[in-house]
Amino acid sequence: MPMDVPESAPSPRGRRRIAEMIVTPVACPDPPLLNHHGVHEATFLRAVVRLRTADGLEGLGEGPGGGLFVQQLRAAAKHVVGADPYQIERLRVLVGDNQPVFAAIESACLDLIGKVTGRPVYELLGGPVRRRVSFAAYLFYKEEGDDPWGPALTPEQLVRQAERFHELYGMTVFKLKGGVLDPWQECATMRLLRERFGPRAGLRIDPNAAWSVETALRVAERLRDFDLEYLEDPTAGIEGMAQVARHTPIPLSTNMCVTAFDHVPAAFRAGAVQVVLGDHHGWGGLTAFRHLGAVCATLRWGLSQHSNSHLGISFAAMIHAAAAIPQLTYASDTHYPWNPHDVVRETDRFRFHDGAIDVWDAPGLGVSIDEDKLAAAAEAYERRGERLVRDDVGAMLDRDPDWLPLMPKW
Amino acid sequence: MPMDVPESAPSPRGRRRIAEMIVTPVACPDPPLLNHHGVHEATFLRAVVRLRTADGLEGLGEGPGGGLFVQQLRAAAKHVVGADPYQIERLRVLVGDNQPVFAAIESACLDLIGKVTGRPVYELLGGPVRRRVSFAAYLFYKEEGDDPWGPALTPEQLVRQAERFHELYGMTVFKLKGGVLDPWQECATMRLLRERFGPRAGLRIDPNAAWSVETALRVAERLRDFDLEYLEDPTAGIEGMAQVARHTPIPLSTNMCVTAFDHVPAAFRAGAVQVVLGDHHGWGGLTAFRHLGAVCATLRWGLSQHSNSHLGISFAAMIHAAAAIPQLTYASDTHYPWNPHDVVRETDRFRFHDGAIDVWDAPGLGVSIDEDKLAAAAEAYERRGERLVRDDVGAMLDRDPDWLPLMPKW
Repeated sequence: MPMDVPESAPSPRGRRRIAEMIVTPVACPDPPLLNHHGVHEATFLRAVVRLRTADGLEGLGEGPGGGLFVQQLRAAAKHVVGADPYQIERLRVLVGDNQPVFAAIESACLDLIGKVTGRPVYELLGGPVRRRVSFAAYLFYKEEGDDPWGPALTPEQLVRQAERFHELYGMTVFKLKGGVLDPWQECATMRLLRERFGPRAGLRIDPNAAWSVETALRVAERLRDFDLEYLEDPTAGIEGMAQVARHTPIPLSTNMCVTAFDHVPAAFRAGAVQVVLGDHHGWGGLTAFRHLGAVCATLRWGLSQHSNSHLGISFAAMIHAAAAIPQLTYASDTHYPWNPHDVVRETDRFRFHDGAIDVWDAPGLGVSIDEDKLAAAAEAYERRGERLVRDDVGAMLDRDPDWLPLMPKW
Repeated sequence: MPMDVPESAPSPRGRRRIAEMIVTPVACPDPPLLNHHGVHEATFLRAVVRLRTADGLEGLGEGPGGGLFVQQLRAAAKHVVGADPYQIERLRVLVGDNQPVFAAIESACLDLIGKVTGRPVYELLGGPVRRRVSFAAYLFYKEEGDDPWGPALTPEQLVRQAERFHELYGMTVFKLKGGVLDPWQECATMRLLRERFGPRAGLRIDPNAAWSVETALRVAERLRDFDLEYLEDPTAGIEGMAQVARHTPIPLSTNMCVTAFDHVPAAFRAGAVQVVLGDHHGWGGLTAFRHLGAVCATLRWGLSQHSNSHLGISFAAMIHAAAAIPQLTYASDTHYPWNPHDVVRETDRFRFHDGAIDVWDAPGLGVSIDEDKLAAAAEAYERRGERLVRDDVGAMLDRDPDWLPLMPKW
């Protein structure tokens, strides 16, 4: 094969360089879910990346939205346009140290490679190690909203929400977003969930570090017999987590104190966690997420998959990741049931059976843009007026100007 | 894309399943290189793996030879034949916990994928991060042999060997296989190398753990001002290495006390090493070697590339690995200049300029079998009579029945 391709006969490689990068910021409705900071803003922001080749193929990526992210994506375009989608590590270095920006671009590159080769993205990541990807029901205390879920402000209402997840999607792993009610009410909720779903259900609680070390240890003691899969970020920081870990047999997991490879050595030395919740957005793409699996396996840590509010491009990427990463043995988180307003056509791929989604064989990510839905979501973003980042704190201050997100909350 | 491919129209995917696996054990002449165990056997053994698809593509792999390895490879064939070469992680699990066996098969799978997609293997590993792959001159004390190198049994002769490496290949990084002479003679050799090649030459010494902790510390003290890149396996075991590491500023490297992901946590906790010498043969394939890069980066360890006696298929794979793995910043080891009797046709790709080899753009590994040379090497293996493993110890016992490989040697 010649090193130089004659210009008179453009090679497939030449034709498949990235000719165009289109970034579309979108806003989509979000139900009034509660977390340690209060209530989610009524819309969530995402950005869609479309990379096109001269011969008309399109690769898709998605990342967290907001004006700042969109600006960073657009600034990266100078390295992306003209690049070969196979040259992922080169792009990583050129795009620089911004994991979600690179992740959205890498997703689109892998989607393109998959389309060129006729292979699903999970086959570009080592091939499938599972054909069904399990998800946890993501339970939120919530207010009444423009959604079919109703309010959930008591343990009983929360268990009804879990029942609905089980009925609609067959899920048997339940993750409660905690840090919202008094910790003892949240413990009561966990007890009710265990009673309702029996000893084989998977249970997790995630107060997003809203508890002090002392509170976390008291809660861990109360949850001790509940057979949790893990206790997620009960308290803040590697040192705080290590203090909790020393005194409870419940595995601790995190997507807060270990969010980058650089955090791993200190957390390992301190014995701060047993499970990392990673995702391709935060860890620098699907290949880096796969590397995180290798790191976790090396350190005998577990690996689970984190989620923020997302659309179907990210969901497809999360499914491909879970199909391919051997270490991802926990049911993944997803906000998808809360955010069904999608911008892709193939939403029928996202059907849960027994809490899991069957992996599909289509090339690339296996999703494509629904132009009408994307246009509507983009219009919603423009109508709203640009904000640099999602602003849950601002939404809370609109409700109560004296509110402050002090931590730890309990 | 349909989930089920109709049988009347075989898909490209179907045609590109692995239809045949051919394993060819070979024996090739090895010069009388000396190491801590004495002298290399006069031949070295390798095995060549050829995976063929129904449409006539062939993927190549190579691994350590000997009857045991060949039997293990052939036992793995039942999982390989009929498999899709993209399903690497699935094959890894099925082949089981035998890193060199899986590595040879994975190499052939990646070679096949590269040929199907028209892409060099390094582009299947994240794309090139460097276009030139640097190698260290692998210096051996040696006896007179049927080779153009002459004997090297004194510091002066060894430096003449290094000069020849520099003249022939332009190498400016020199690794001395130590553990052969008295450690103070080996220190004298290092001093002569530094004097001869100046302050910018890279110097390493590797006694294969032939020294006690006490000897290693005394040697490290003597080498302190020689500005070594690293001191490789001065002594045995994680604990021994940690004892040395605590008292010397010279970075310690290993391909003996950390040879699997499972060894990493203990070595990290103990502070035993600063650089790991990995390779795709020993660590379970090119993708696993890339994962080792991620692990090393996470722990702030360096990564270098280890070599055993090898032929051109392995050499090509080592070059692809070094082109693609960002963390592989040290010049790689290679035995190739000692073992030019190859079984591939494209040996002109292996031309060193300034100690480096230019990466090529051919699909897959970019090498193909020279059938005559392979047949001759296979005949040499058969003529020799099967042995289960390479047997340097047996070769020494033939010379001296009272010889014993006691360690530490000094």
